[in-house]
Amino acid sequence: MITIGVDIGGTSIKGAAVSDEGKISSTFSMPVYRDDNSEITLTRLSETIKNFIAGLNIKKSDVRGVGVGCPGAIDSGKGIVNYSNNLQWTNVHLKEFLEKELGLAVRITNDANAATLGEAKFGSGKIYKNVIMLTLGTGVGGGIIINGQLYEGNEGKGAELGHTVIEVDGEECTCGRKGCLEAYSSATALIRETKKRMNLHQSSYLWKLVDGDLSKVNGKVAFDACKAGDKVGAAIIDWYVKYLGEGILNFCNIFRPDIVILSGGIANQGDYLINKLTTYCRDRFYGYQRAPKVEIKKATLGYESGMIGAASLFLN
Amino acid sequence: MITIGVDIGGTSIKGAAVSDEGKISSTFSMPVYRDDNSEITLTRLSETIKNFIAGLNIKKSDVRGVGVGCPGAIDSGKGIVNYSNNLQWTNVHLKEFLEKELGLAVRITNDANAATLGEAKFGSGKIYKNVIMLTLGTGVGGGIIINGQLYEGNEGKGAELGHTVIEVDGEECTCGRKGCLEAYSSATALIRETKKRMNLHQSSYLWKLVDGDLSKVNGKVAFDACKAGDKVGAAIIDWYVKYLGEGILNFCNIFRPDIVILSGGIANQGDYLINKLTTYCRDRFYGYQRAPKVEIKKATLGYESGMIGAASLFLN
Repeated sequence: MITIGVDIGGTSIKGAAVSDEGKISSTFSMPVYRDDNSEITLTRLSETIKNFIAGLNIKKSDVRGVGVGCPGAIDSGKGIVNYSNNLQWTNVHLKEFLEKELGLAVRITNDANAATLGEAKFGSGKIYKNVIMLTLGTGVGGGIIINGQLYEGNEGKGAELGHTVIEVDGEECTCGRKGCLEAYSSATALIRETKKRMNLHQSSYLWKLVDGDLSKVNGKVAFDACKAGDKVGAAIIDWYVKYLGEGILNFCNIFRPDIVILSGGIANQGDYLINKLTTYCRDRFYGYQRAPKVEIKKATLGYESGMIGAASLFLN
Repeated sequence: MITIGVDIGGTSIKGAAVSDEGKISSTFSMPVYRDDNSEITLTRLSETIKNFIAGLNIKKSDVRGVGVGCPGAIDSGKGIVNYSNNLQWTNVHLKEFLEKELGLAVRITNDANAATLGEAKFGSGKIYKNVIMLTLGTGVGGGIIINGQLYEGNEGKGAELGHTVIEVDGEECTCGRKGCLEAYSSATALIRETKKRMNLHQSSYLWKLVDGDLSKVNGKVAFDACKAGDKVGAAIIDWYVKYLGEGILNFCNIFRPDIVILSGGIANQGDYLINKLTTYCRDRFYGYQRAPKVEIKKATLGYESGMIGAASLFLN
């Protein structure tokens, strides 16, 4: 049996045939055009999926269903995309539309939840039952796995771990509050802080790394500067580790999970970041002398986690 | 059938016979002496429970078991009190001891979890499946109910909602970190803030309320001053509502529960506090235009919630 896993993004939709062991055997990809409305995009998607399945040379009865991860506010129970800013979709009945077009069972969830489920079942979390995942990208996405099951909150509107305030009256967040974890631990926040400190320290090695061009600052240069021994770079990374570490500690004290998985662009720093975070958190856990150990690890499935996780909605 | 619910505190142990409908029919109480070690205290407790059951005029087979809520770090799976500062207990095998003495099944959990389970099953949360409780007392206790079940985290060491940082580098917390919710939303924190602002405003009505004696400040006077129109009192309550509100918003964005229940001394302010918190939180929830409503309510079982909740460990 296979399941189709679909990962909807703002510029493209990726899909895959996923085995019950979480392995991808075949993939497809289609662009998303900003000017198309949801019906046009979903009609194209269903045609693409039909052709994809036809090309797999399997019986329709060998397909468990179609799992979809979608950005935005998703009512997973009803299968509705309430609102997606990336796609400019409002109240799109995604599940109903695709089920009618495809004649297959369809399940949907938030894209961050899908990625978490993929990592939890078949990636870094596969030997664990209780998993927290943080995706450190443009924003900070979150996912929660309790006893092997995705925890989404009422109407699928929970697990917004990036939107927890860690500094009252702090940096402005896209959600309207101030001081959210996202405003400190996203790549966007790291870039903001890097630029701010570069402006204060014109002699920093950071300027060399971007050829004197502030617009070239990305989520990697502060790490590069830090590794090269630059003091300003080191201070930025200390700042980043502290805020992300405090966020991780919060989720550990709340959930006391087996593992916290980091994904997204910043997580590509791998052990260099993980080791600093582990050191920061070690003796700060609540009741740390007697608390069970929480692992912090990098995600291993990369961009495939979204597709594998979406398919995993059928693999409970 | 009845269940014995036991609530262990630092100065006394309270117990009750609890019906399957969460009603208390009979109670007992015994003091805890600081100089007694755990074996002496637990021997007295088991004798007290034996006599209590004998006095109930029921068959032993009509007793489902003994549920115990205990302060400190509890390994609920193994039935061990790893450490309780209040009781000065370390690695006390509570479940094993009582089961041997009583010949009844014993289940234990953290006292905050027990109180949450009581409120969730038979108090303010009884019509809801997903419940967060915050106890605003000397510290800030937390409890999490997911799909009607207590969520404790690995080794029963999660749900430490009071120990989530909402202000990095903020007020010192008893846990060793800085800026925890407990350091802003406990009665202790409110008293600290009240005294601080009184010292800055010698003409405040607050001084009249405590007869000019700073040592008389409690968790109520700032509310009293605010209600009487005192500006300093109002500013303190605004401060308190803001920090507690931010904490509540965090838990709502994480769990998107049906209800947040407030208990403990400060929650006795009832609707006066609840209304201010509801107003503060209303348009700050993540995606609030499309997010499901979260109720904020006061606990209704009072100090009985701990005993009822401990008994509820047998009523899943």
